[in-house]
Amino acid sequence: MIHNFNAGPSVLPKEVFEEASKAILNFNGTGLSILEIGHRTALFENVLHEAISLVTELMNLNKDKEVLFLHGGASTQFFQIPMNFLGQKEKAAYLDCGVWGSKAIKEAKNFGSVDIVGTSKEKGYTFIPKDYAIPTDAKYFHITTNNTIEGTEMFSIPGTSVPLIADMSSDILSQQLDFNQFALIYAGAQKNIGAAGVNLVVIDKKLKQVPDRRIPSMLDYQQHIANGSMLNTPPVFAIYVCMLTLRWLKSIGGIPAIEKINKQKAEMVYSVLDANPEFRPTVAKEDRSRMNVVFVIDDPEKEKKFNEKCKELNFIGVKGHRSVGGFRLSLYNALPMESVEQFCSFASSFK
Amino acid sequence: MIHNFNAGPSVLPKEVFEEASKAILNFNGTGLSILEIGHRTALFENVLHEAISLVTELMNLNKDKEVLFLHGGASTQFFQIPMNFLGQKEKAAYLDCGVWGSKAIKEAKNFGSVDIVGTSKEKGYTFIPKDYAIPTDAKYFHITTNNTIEGTEMFSIPGTSVPLIADMSSDILSQQLDFNQFALIYAGAQKNIGAAGVNLVVIDKKLKQVPDRRIPSMLDYQQHIANGSMLNTPPVFAIYVCMLTLRWLKSIGGIPAIEKINKQKAEMVYSVLDANPEFRPTVAKEDRSRMNVVFVIDDPEKEKKFNEKCKELNFIGVKGHRSVGGFRLSLYNALPMESVEQFCSFASSFK
Repeated sequence: MIHNFNAGPSVLPKEVFEEASKAILNFNGTGLSILEIGHRTALFENVLHEAISLVTELMNLNKDKEVLFLHGGASTQFFQIPMNFLGQKEKAAYLDCGVWGSKAIKEAKNFGSVDIVGTSKEKGYTFIPKDYAIPTDAKYFHITTNNTIEGTEMFSIPGTSVPLIADMSSDILSQQLDFNQFALIYAGAQKNIGAAGVNLVVIDKKLKQVPDRRIPSMLDYQQHIANGSMLNTPPVFAIYVCMLTLRWLKSIGGIPAIEKINKQKAEMVYSVLDANPEFRPTVAKEDRSRMNVVFVIDDPEKEKKFNEKCKELNFIGVKGHRSVGGFRLSLYNALPMESVEQFCSFASSFK
Repeated sequence: MIHNFNAGPSVLPKEVFEEASKAILNFNGTGLSILEIGHRTALFENVLHEAISLVTELMNLNKDKEVLFLHGGASTQFFQIPMNFLGQKEKAAYLDCGVWGSKAIKEAKNFGSVDIVGTSKEKGYTFIPKDYAIPTDAKYFHITTNNTIEGTEMFSIPGTSVPLIADMSSDILSQQLDFNQFALIYAGAQKNIGAAGVNLVVIDKKLKQVPDRRIPSMLDYQQHIANGSMLNTPPVFAIYVCMLTLRWLKSIGGIPAIEKINKQKAEMVYSVLDANPEFRPTVAKEDRSRMNVVFVIDDPEKEKKFNEKCKELNFIGVKGHRSVGGFRLSLYNALPMESVEQFCSFASSFK
């Protein structure tokens, strides 16, 4: 068995692989491949609608929220959000907690003013800033709930009257939250939602666009809402894989059930890392991500040996992001408990 | 057997479905699904590089051309092109030959001036305008080589000193062309290249961007070139399906071989339609698309009967686009000759 700790694209449930593989040869007994069906057929519309209604149900969304499946990944949202919601003479508040958040900030600066209300940059993004004020005249407040590269996660969402916008790419659907408190949530699919190639956006329909800017059709949320994610040909197969993964999540008990498992998996790994002096987790304890466990081995010889051992034992994707080094274990929803157990059993006795 | 005349997403080679289905369970004998491999692993980089080199080889591209696989579909190119290459006080020339071209024109107008040098709009886009002048001071000249909805195709590319930009979404890789005469070519994958969810862009590296405009990273061709289509997580599986389809095209003899087949398929269908007075092809003879054959049946009773018969005989996707009605047979590269033969045998005796 291969234990896939990839940070994304990452492991998906076995049932999803099996069903997707079949659908490429014969989708729902139609004799057609899922890859060759028209996107404006009932065959695909059923897939899209089921995916949307599963997101609505699993996240317990209210009637003001619209669920969209869009092209372009979270990186497209980095600029699409300020393009739609930040006027040239207006300001938006951003929390700067890592590589991805700082990329979002960079893109926003092309459209208006950015007020960085908190940052952990000077400490290598190893914690989540907590004491900050959100200016009440900001058009929105942008956070990254989980920092995939640095291994920090926000376990409490700041209360504010300013519309909250969150990049949840790497921890969406992993823990219970009041998702209705957000004006906009976005997440690349390739971690907890499905395969790479599509982006989930949950948007409050009442969120007001900048009135005086010409926005290209494909970047206009209102047009996507009006066209039900079918403004142009959607990434059919990627959305289908999302639907299968969402079905699986529902079948095992939804977010409450997976949250329990996720807590268990993270606790197992962190307690092994804390107990064995060979490892040094890099993140402030209270901000440790349940999705991405980041740690280093200070002794280069031991680091090398650890790497070799991981290869030998089929633990893949354990290397840290190329920008930070060290190690990173990604423990997304679909990672089997068995993989965590095997890793812990190995790591606890590693010397 | 189902005969899939879908306009896109559309039929792909049987070998591609089989290989893709296997790769979802076990990619290249790795024990991993293609859906769970990291995009920065050698496993995926090999896929991307093979896809790029197959495009380069099949299209016989010179060293100035860069092959990109991007998010967002051709509709994203509609605005990305003027955003990068058309200054606010500059003008671009466009040929208006159908629904998609006119959408490209609409998006371009947000960025600069548009000079529509030719249009067939008043005749329902049933022909390709031929007598027009391209202003030499235009920043580029934009054409749509095949009009999927209206069923017209350009069989001769105008000579011009102005950089040529072409939307080839529905006829790319179907006929021999000097692809190096274009400054930029784009095409949604879901017809002749692969499955929905990725966009092929072939761009001349020397094409100059507008100097005074801030362009979001994800919309900046130069950044995509610098990052080799990996500016963010690419649509891994969609690119993999492209690679498989490109491999198949190479294996059957590349563009020269498929062009011969495409000519044969189109000639068979048009000659049946011309010979049977029940059908009325709507497009000027010299501009008839080899990819999308558009025709009507004037008698509503017979139209209904024809529709029913098609269903009975498993000819799917034969209805015209919702905006034009009538019928449309899409004869893309991967449509088997057998499907064309079966259709012709039925249509020739239809009364």
